[in-house]
Amino acid sequence: MTGIAEPFDLGAYLRAETPRIEEALNAAVSEASDLVPVELERAIDHGVLSEGKRLRPVLCVAAYSACGGQSPRIPELAVSLELIHAYSLMHDDLPCMDDAELRRGRPTTNRVYGDEVTVRAGAALIPLAALRAWRGARAVGVSELTARAIVEELCRAAGAGGMVGGQVLDLRAEGSVLDGAALDHLHRLKTGALLTASLRIGALAAGASRAALEALDSYGRAVGLAFQIADDILDATATATSLGKNPSDADRDKTTYVGVHGLGGAVDCAQKEVARARAALHCADVGDPVLHALAQYVVERRR
Amino acid sequence: MTGIAEPFDLGAYLRAETPRIEEALNAAVSEASDLVPVELERAIDHGVLSEGKRLRPVLCVAAYSACGGQSPRIPELAVSLELIHAYSLMHDDLPCMDDAELRRGRPTTNRVYGDEVTVRAGAALIPLAALRAWRGARAVGVSELTARAIVEELCRAAGAGGMVGGQVLDLRAEGSVLDGAALDHLHRLKTGALLTASLRIGALAAGASRAALEALDSYGRAVGLAFQIADDILDATATATSLGKNPSDADRDKTTYVGVHGLGGAVDCAQKEVARARAALHCADVGDPVLHALAQYVVERRR
Repeated sequence: MTGIAEPFDLGAYLRAETPRIEEALNAAVSEASDLVPVELERAIDHGVLSEGKRLRPVLCVAAYSACGGQSPRIPELAVSLELIHAYSLMHDDLPCMDDAELRRGRPTTNRVYGDEVTVRAGAALIPLAALRAWRGARAVGVSELTARAIVEELCRAAGAGGMVGGQVLDLRAEGSVLDGAALDHLHRLKTGALLTASLRIGALAAGASRAALEALDSYGRAVGLAFQIADDILDATATATSLGKNPSDADRDKTTYVGVHGLGGAVDCAQKEVARARAALHCADVGDPVLHALAQYVVERRR
Repeated sequence: MTGIAEPFDLGAYLRAETPRIEEALNAAVSEASDLVPVELERAIDHGVLSEGKRLRPVLCVAAYSACGGQSPRIPELAVSLELIHAYSLMHDDLPCMDDAELRRGRPTTNRVYGDEVTVRAGAALIPLAALRAWRGARAVGVSELTARAIVEELCRAAGAGGMVGGQVLDLRAEGSVLDGAALDHLHRLKTGALLTASLRIGALAAGASRAALEALDSYGRAVGLAFQIADDILDATATATSLGKNPSDADRDKTTYVGVHGLGGAVDCAQKEVARARAALHCADVGDPVLHALAQYVVERRR
């Protein structure tokens, strides 16, 4: 593995990489069967193919390369993580959750296709993601055993002990005050589980060593928290500078990192997590410039 | 395979088989991770462990035995189908769908745990089902290749080209009049996809021949339609005889087999499908008394 080449042009990397991810994502949702009703197909397209950061597939591809993976077909596997993320956003925006009008600058899926179709379309993305992970793993050329480990990783991260567990903790946290540890636990599940799975799946596909997997676990946990702290900071500063993005009532009633640590304290926390993420890579000698740059990117992003 | 031994005591078979299924179902949902919030665990238990017919696992176990499968651990695989079915019922009962108060004689999951937790808990069952199918397939002792075919079968049946596609057709059929062919197509997806997958998964686990798989496909399609026609007949007769089970407003606004064919015509249709199901078994020499009896059971059941 190479040493750290700073400054690394992450922007150029993302501009090169995301079109391949978008292409694989398009292919994943347009494996059109005649049996899929048109309205369901459109709702799925709306929820998945809107403009997103594609952070999870990017992390998966980066971890794959960092661990020595060579197949150009890795995006076909990586998009399984975006399908899970897209379903979670579709359900997040429902009236019984955040009741959101806008997502990625467009009306939410439920505002366009109705709540009932959105619940169904979101749920349909979960088995699609599992199938996609299977086929993607095989496209990359891994063994049956590794393919199974990959699908298990995805299913665990997307389940009650992962993302959904965090979502339910988040629902119940509304209107109550959490301490720092409870807030960390919530976000480790809600955001961290899928981010960490993205890295682990890339690493598993590349046949990474146990040490590299453990390093990526630590990196993923730190990046996940940094990501969430940055979210809270964006929410708070968007309010302060009237950038037209107001936190919802629900958000205002939730414990945030800015609420617990203050704005300056939250910025410090985020940077500590970035440093922790980078240190984890050093420990396992995963000196990948993309992963290093991504750790900083998640706290510097503007959306 | 044995010839048809009539009369076959299906009641005794079900009384012997369902406790094994309940046990496996309990184990599937109580693989408790410390990471699963208590409320989510309870909502999942409520949605899954209520008293159901367990028709899908029963079909899976019966198809497995009919195709020569010997492992006593087949219920561990079969319950993956019940997990998908349970999630679909949890989402069906949401206010934006059927807004149901009662399910299997108890308050629906959303009435007890709220809509937001129910959406989440339902979605969490999908990756759990995929994991369960994996582990169940391995418990039964199939090859990696067959295990993959089984998980793919489950994911396809539970997806946009299967059950969810049928659910969306069903949503859009409210308030419009369908002809017999459109009604068949809707129910082939909505109910038939998972029933057929139940049989195919049992057969795949037993290493069934292609001919047996095709016969079970035909059997499954016919049994699925018979099941739905029986549902419509139950709804209609429950109204007529005031058995305390009234169709919802939404149901009354839907095209039903009784609406299309009349009550007598619907009873005839159901019996035709039962005959078709049995004929399919004969063709492939799958002379299993359980499957034969189950075909009749789905139209004679009282709930």
